[in-house]
Amino acid sequence: MRVLIKNGTIVNADGRARQDLLIENGLISQLAEEITVEQPCEVIDASGCYVMPGGVDVHTHFNIDTGLARSCDDFFTGTRAAACGGTTTIVDHMGFGPAGCRLRHQLETYLGYAAYKAVIDYSFHGVIQHINHAILDEIPLMVDAGISSFKLYLTYQYKLSDDDVFQVMRHLHSAGALTTVHPENDAAIARKRAEFLAQGKTAPRYHALSRPLECEAEAIARMINLAQLAGNAPLYIVHLSNGLGLEYLKLARSRHQPVWVETCPQYLLLDDRCYEREDALKYLLSPPLRNASNNDSLWCGVSDGSIDVIATDHCAFSMAQRQHLSNGDFSRCPNGLPGVENRLLLLFSHGVMTGRITPEHFVALTSANPAKLFGLWPHKGVLAAGADGDVVIIDPRRTTTIRHEMLHDNADYSPWEGFICQGSIRQTLSRGRVIFSNGTFCGVAGQGRFLRRSPFSSAPIPMSGIPI
Amino acid sequence: MRVLIKNGTIVNADGRARQDLLIENGLISQLAEEITVEQPCEVIDASGCYVMPGGVDVHTHFNIDTGLARSCDDFFTGTRAAACGGTTTIVDHMGFGPAGCRLRHQLETYLGYAAYKAVIDYSFHGVIQHINHAILDEIPLMVDAGISSFKLYLTYQYKLSDDDVFQVMRHLHSAGALTTVHPENDAAIARKRAEFLAQGKTAPRYHALSRPLECEAEAIARMINLAQLAGNAPLYIVHLSNGLGLEYLKLARSRHQPVWVETCPQYLLLDDRCYEREDALKYLLSPPLRNASNNDSLWCGVSDGSIDVIATDHCAFSMAQRQHLSNGDFSRCPNGLPGVENRLLLLFSHGVMTGRITPEHFVALTSANPAKLFGLWPHKGVLAAGADGDVVIIDPRRTTTIRHEMLHDNADYSPWEGFICQGSIRQTLSRGRVIFSNGTFCGVAGQGRFLRRSPFSSAPIPMSGIPI
Amino acid sequence: MRVLIKNGTIVNADGRARQDLLIENGLISQLAEEITVEQPCEVIDASGCYVMPGGVDVHTHFNIDTGLARSCDDFFTGTRAAACGGTTTIVDHMGFGPAGCRLRHQLETYLGYAAYKAVIDYSFHGVIQHINHAILDEIPLMVDAGISSFKLYLTYQYKLSDDDVFQVMRHLHSAGALTTVHPENDAAIARKRAEFLAQGKTAPRYHALSRPLECEAEAIARMINLAQLAGNAPLYIVHLSNGLGLEYLKLARSRHQPVWVETCPQYLLLDDRCYEREDALKYLLSPPLRNASNNDSLWCGVSDGSIDVIATDHCAFSMAQRQHLSNGDFSRCPNGLPGVENRLLLLFSHGVMTGRITPEHFVALTSANPAKLFGLWPHKGVLAAGADGDVVIIDPRRTTTIRHEMLHDNADYSPWEGFICQGSIRQTLSRGRVIFSNGTFCGVAGQGRFLRRSPFSSAPIPMSGIPI
Amino acid sequence: MRVLIKNGTIVNADGRARQDLLIENGLISQLAEEITVEQPCEVIDASGCYVMPGGVDVHTHFNIDTGLARSCDDFFTGTRAAACGGTTTIVDHMGFGPAGCRLRHQLETYLGYAAYKAVIDYSFHGVIQHINHAILDEIPLMVDAGISSFKLYLTYQYKLSDDDVFQVMRHLHSAGALTTVHPENDAAIARKRAEFLAQGKTAPRYHALSRPLECEAEAIARMINLAQLAGNAPLYIVHLSNGLGLEYLKLARSRHQPVWVETCPQYLLLDDRCYEREDALKYLLSPPLRNASNNDSLWCGVSDGSIDVIATDHCAFSMAQRQHLSNGDFSRCPNGLPGVENRLLLLFSHGVMTGRITPEHFVALTSANPAKLFGLWPHKGVLAAGADGDVVIIDPRRTTTIRHEMLHDNADYSPWEGFICQGSIRQTLSRGRVIFSNGTFCGVAGQGRFLRRSPFSSAPIPMSGIPI
Repeated sequence: MRVLIKNGTIVNADGRARQDLLIENGLISQLAEEITVEQPCEVIDASGCYVMPGGVDVHTHFNIDTGLARSCDDFFTGTRAAACGGTTTIVDHMGFGPAGCRLRHQLETYLGYAAYKAVIDYSFHGVIQHINHAILDEIPLMVDAGISSFKLYLTYQYKLSDDDVFQVMRHLHSAGALTTVHPENDAAIARKRAEFLAQGKTAPRYHALSRPLECEAEAIARMINLAQLAGNAPLYIVHLSNGLGLEYLKLARSRHQPVWVETCPQYLLLDDRCYEREDALKYLLSPPLRNASNNDSLWCGVSDGSIDVIATDHCAFSMAQRQHLSNGDFSRCPNGLPGVENRLLLLFSHGVMTGRITPEHFVALTSANPAKLFGLWPHKGVLAAGADGDVVIIDPRRTTTIRHEMLHDNADYSPWEGFICQGSIRQTLSRGRVIFSNGTFCGVAGQGRFLRRSPFSSAPIPMSGIPI
Repeated sequence: MRVLIKNGTIVNADGRARQDLLIENGLISQLAEEITVEQPCEVIDASGCYVMPGGVDVHTHFNIDTGLARSCDDFFTGTRAAACGGTTTIVDHMGFGPAGCRLRHQLETYLGYAAYKAVIDYSFHGVIQHINHAILDEIPLMVDAGISSFKLYLTYQYKLSDDDVFQVMRHLHSAGALTTVHPENDAAIARKRAEFLAQGKTAPRYHALSRPLECEAEAIARMINLAQLAGNAPLYIVHLSNGLGLEYLKLARSRHQPVWVETCPQYLLLDDRCYEREDALKYLLSPPLRNASNNDSLWCGVSDGSIDVIATDHCAFSMAQRQHLSNGDFSRCPNGLPGVENRLLLLFSHGVMTGRITPEHFVALTSANPAKLFGLWPHKGVLAAGADGDVVIIDPRRTTTIRHEMLHDNADYSPWEGFICQGSIRQTLSRGRVIFSNGTFCGVAGQGRFLRRSPFSSAPIPMSGIPI
Repeated sequence: MRVLIKNGTIVNADGRARQDLLIENGLISQLAEEITVEQPCEVIDASGCYVMPGGVDVHTHFNIDTGLARSCDDFFTGTRAAACGGTTTIVDHMGFGPAGCRLRHQLETYLGYAAYKAVIDYSFHGVIQHINHAILDEIPLMVDAGISSFKLYLTYQYKLSDDDVFQVMRHLHSAGALTTVHPENDAAIARKRAEFLAQGKTAPRYHALSRPLECEAEAIARMINLAQLAGNAPLYIVHLSNGLGLEYLKLARSRHQPVWVETCPQYLLLDDRCYEREDALKYLLSPPLRNASNNDSLWCGVSDGSIDVIATDHCAFSMAQRQHLSNGDFSRCPNGLPGVENRLLLLFSHGVMTGRITPEHFVALTSANPAKLFGLWPHKGVLAAGADGDVVIIDPRRTTTIRHEMLHDNADYSPWEGFICQGSIRQTLSRGRVIFSNGTFCGVAGQGRFLRRSPFSSAPIPMSGIPI
Repeated sequence: MRVLIKNGTIVNADGRARQDLLIENGLISQLAEEITVEQPCEVIDASGCYVMPGGVDVHTHFNIDTGLARSCDDFFTGTRAAACGGTTTIVDHMGFGPAGCRLRHQLETYLGYAAYKAVIDYSFHGVIQHINHAILDEIPLMVDAGISSFKLYLTYQYKLSDDDVFQVMRHLHSAGALTTVHPENDAAIARKRAEFLAQGKTAPRYHALSRPLECEAEAIARMINLAQLAGNAPLYIVHLSNGLGLEYLKLARSRHQPVWVETCPQYLLLDDRCYEREDALKYLLSPPLRNASNNDSLWCGVSDGSIDVIATDHCAFSMAQRQHLSNGDFSRCPNGLPGVENRLLLLFSHGVMTGRITPEHFVALTSANPAKLFGLWPHKGVLAAGADGDVVIIDPRRTTTIRHEMLHDNADYSPWEGFICQGSIRQTLSRGRVIFSNGTFCGVAGQGRFLRRSPFSSAPIPMSGIPI
């Protein structure tokens, strides 16, 4: 099996060149100015297009049951959508399991969820729902099994206390795992929410008003300092939504602390005016959308290199579910947005095509950096001989208008409805197989493989994409 | 003569309230929750609208002759356009006069230009074209005559050296005048431009490439430090276009130095992709448009209070002039954009309606802060008893699409063509006279008065608009 | 009763002048270039000296019982030492009372402690030891009684949770009181300390190692954000010891949040090498001394105006007490340093005489700013007609070597032993009475008065001292 | 020839270990926990000591003729002093030659100066005294000859204009040379100085007052931006003396620009109170000493990693010369301080022993970083097999009081007279020969070799020393 991509501009996080690319048996075998192949070979003409490493989305929630509801995407519909958006690897969250369950239990559950369904390669983050000796002892075993990152929540039902966090960070650090955190101050949110509900303020806007950005910023600063106290444990902040939190992270970086941060397209391109719309329920997620100033601040962080990763936090509940469950009360609405299919194109259009970032920086944010941080590099995240044949081809000349009916997830709406993007996803290849081409999904359920990820490197490969 | 504005939301830089507003004999006489007037009185119903101090635009160039060309707006068409956009005061630049001319000469010239033309109140900035004893001696006389701010250029034909700048800043400071500067490093620009021209690179994009943002940032840092060396002279940077310069200014502020900065809508909302357009000539100005990251940075500066003033730098040359003069060579095209009519609505739509700034902050940026800095406060910049009856009424519910044919300046195009703004200028009043109403200009040439401005206050009124 | 201070340089936070100063009946009655008095009058010649507002020390703990021990200074020895160091007002902490006790109980207790003892004027901060409806309801009553600031602890026995803090900040804010906080993360400290003790690491150095600077910085960021969430409640951070916390505070200030910060001479001039000394127990306090880099950072904060107040946190336990109680185990040693007598001279010598700060800035840090923040202005903190006759006269030409035997508190050692200071406290006057003169205490127990402080001003007087 | 250093703590910029070190034939041949040598071998017992790479001082001026005077140190006395202070490599400045002279001329001159004199290895920086085609064409030839860095002056007789700087930076960049700059704004200095002289203000303090820190900060920002405009040319700022300039450099770094900065012990440990002393002439140098706040800021920059290199700017004129030439007029006094012998111990004592920096960071600042930046790595700057046998042994237990009579340069005073340092230079080895031991110089004139330095690396080795 052989695929040759000709005439495109090969883009990696550290440079680009007009080159041809040959994939054999699922692995990239050659990059050269001109490749000619005599044997039978599928040839893709990428003239005028960027040929980039397939996207790595390290923040999805398929099959999740939040207690309030089960998400409407499973590992088939979720990875299908990802593939059609140019993403060839996802790292999903294993959570939440039954109270008190072991980490191993969740891994088995999720391996089962994904097994015959995933159309692209996948792995999982562990989720630490509670702390005890058994859980702490399991961590090294999980890392051995290829799970080298774990998520902590500071709010919701499974929130951890400072003491829990401090302990688990140490254990994760010594086991070679990266700590990732959903940072929001639970005490302030709980009190604000209770007050709104007591006053009958149940409209969607009160969801946002009950968790202002300072809730998130506070928790970010707390995690930064606890990570330092826990022996300089490496830390990854998910779904950053506000500029103040970014300032705290920049301070930590300027002090040479190993912290990284992810944001998502919704925090760059949507804002809290959505909560004044009729269909505001579509936009309920946590942290909530902020005002446009926070969009500006986050874009600055993307451009200047202080934001490392763009992921999606895809966590889809249909409007039907949302309306039925919330029944007019924001606090009963499941949180989360679909979007796994839209990440690359949104960032390409609003980042690369506006001049905010270079194509190299785009690859860093969407593929190379997450691959490096989460133990997937150099199989994923780079177009180089020996790497997996995961490729996305983007045509900068075409325009795409996002319409829900063209998307491949299982939600019944898109928060991106009507967005006009400069650029178009032409093809996606996973291990050398074309799984999406010119608007049509052509992958196969079950062909994605579970990725045993490497331990977190104590001397991580430098993040890249910023011209130096 | 009496006008009563009823039912609106009165907005000042330091707060807002549902109040009626009465103007008598050109001055505001009363603000109260409910005003009833028995005598004959014009009544304007401002229900659902914001009632704000008329805009103060401290950066325009009417009647300017740059040497390359004379701008297409005079004090009638220019102030008419301003009025129709909600601006009731302009401070224009007296420049450039014949080589070696005296400051007084220029003041007389400009008083003549404006006398029977201006439809709104006006004043002038002095322009220091060269330095000698006579000029330095004239400065205090000019301040006595009401000219309490002077502009220095660091590039173009009338550029000043560091030694010139150092001297003139001291003299301006001791005379009670504010130094304003067009900051760009001439040496780097000259060399880059010469190289492009020698290589035949004469397309509009080379205009921007010949003056990168570091040219501007460098000169800003230089001016900040020379002002400090010149006895902590107060300094005002005009038309900031980039984020690095803003960082330098923020540093100076954090050191308690008296520096202020202005930006313009074009630097917030347009970017250098304009130079790839067919009609790129429309967007030639200096400093040039930057990439979208600089838009982001400047918006952050607007929101966080580090930018003090939004002005326009209206300096209109028609496309006919531009094409004729440049004839394919950017270096021969006169620089500058029209826009005096669009400032308020663009900022209202993209600032207030997006949640980036409050209505109070909008008033600070467009009216109160420039009035304070340029010696017009408290006659201008505030709705309060005793202040001039200069008012703009903005309706946030309507949508406006900018079309050149609806504008009132004398240019033959608008860089804002097709921009959709949330909000609409309903009425403009100058000294209690309605001069614009629902799309129709109804002012009279010559009714604008020359404003003798107060000296720069050594203990300036605090800038405002940021909620504390 | 009349005192005339002649020939000195009068220094206030906003300027200085060669002036004479007349005090009549305890109040300043006149400042003028030359004052001549015919009636009988005590005359002090202050030639060559600075004449400044008496020091206001808003952080002392006299008579405190920490549970481990009772401090060795009461309101007589404590205020006597203050007076001899140039301080004429103290604001002590009312704490800790019996578990569950009412705020009023503590006020009565402390009024009793101070009544016949204090030699200078005094007030108290409330201490919130726990939260319930009764305590919250008492807050406005306390503010009416002149107690307009309250301290919260985040560590120790009386630590408050985030939810407690959030509630009490709101109540304090609406009652017109300022929230002050001792910020340290209790969870991390508790775990680190327990581990050291379990390993037999009980030497003084482990005191510092068990509470690294990130414990403090974390809590500062948390308080900043909770204060903002609690309706932008004003916040005052006590005894800042590290540079990272200062960065968080500067960020909050740059966002226009009403936060202020105090540091103490020990955090500017001592460092953690003290914990390697034989007599390390002398230096146990919380937060602990940091390394010299943090000294540098705090000095930068003093110079650039980001630190508002210098206080002492005087909390004296004798070495006898320390050794007896700790018996080789840092965790049993009472925390705190003496120093109320040394504050002014240390800052004068290392701040003013090194050129780090101006004399005006010195007055701001030691007197004017704390007076403004804690409701004492303009009776205290300024030399102006009508203000209390509280004065300190400092001679910059003399050198002082600090020796414990020359100090006036009740401790049996000084952490400042052997420090050589450029400058000397010549005289201290309280309400026009000389209470210290050329090395001799001459005040009287019980002449200090309780100060009913004004509510915290929602539009506080600008902090001063930085030349603008 | 063989030397074995036993029982010490080997310190490199990236770590330390208890190891023995063997040098054979001038090169380091082995590092191991325990080395035993059977052949004849000199053995040094370094128990309790740090064994570190010999110092690299990249800023000295031996044999310099400033026009006003010739410095009192030549390459023998200068390098002898260096050696006795633990420095084993110097990079001196070739300047100034006769007006209009070629670069090659200066190289020959300096090779002659150093040839039979230097006791340690040496190289030279080129100095660009003026610009013309011949000079620009010579640059690549000089780089081939091993001169890969060039100094520009922005003040003094040989100052370059912005246009000169812009051109020369481009040429240096493309030739593989690093641009180094003495940054001070000449126009402001010239005017201030002329004014002071006209007023008869000729005392040493007016030297400092005529060149305030903003002169330097301005020029730093200008150089940063010109370097960026000149194709992102690498830039090295010498002898930083103030905190504002450091802020500009940190901003550039945060934008990923290749800029580095050096400071000197005098800017960390001396301040402008020296200019009030009787012997103020001893401290005349440019930039001048600043106030203590700038010491604090620079120490912060040393600790946090924003300052890369500590050098000395050794440029010695005797007090006899100074007094004779100045004759009461600061403007006629030659500028510069001796100090090449004191650098390591001053930084060790005030940096390492206070806890501001680690021993590794000390090595980075004094040896590894300058070696990397100036094309000497990995022969110099590191203790590793294959590197030159350049070693300094420092005993942290001893105390050294600096006395001029113990120093080895040719000046008749030391600005460090009486400074007490914790630590002592025990031995210095150059290419495996002991050249200083326990207070006695034992090197030989002429044994130092000229180092042909490598071109500046476009992907420089990361600066190090900061624990990550």
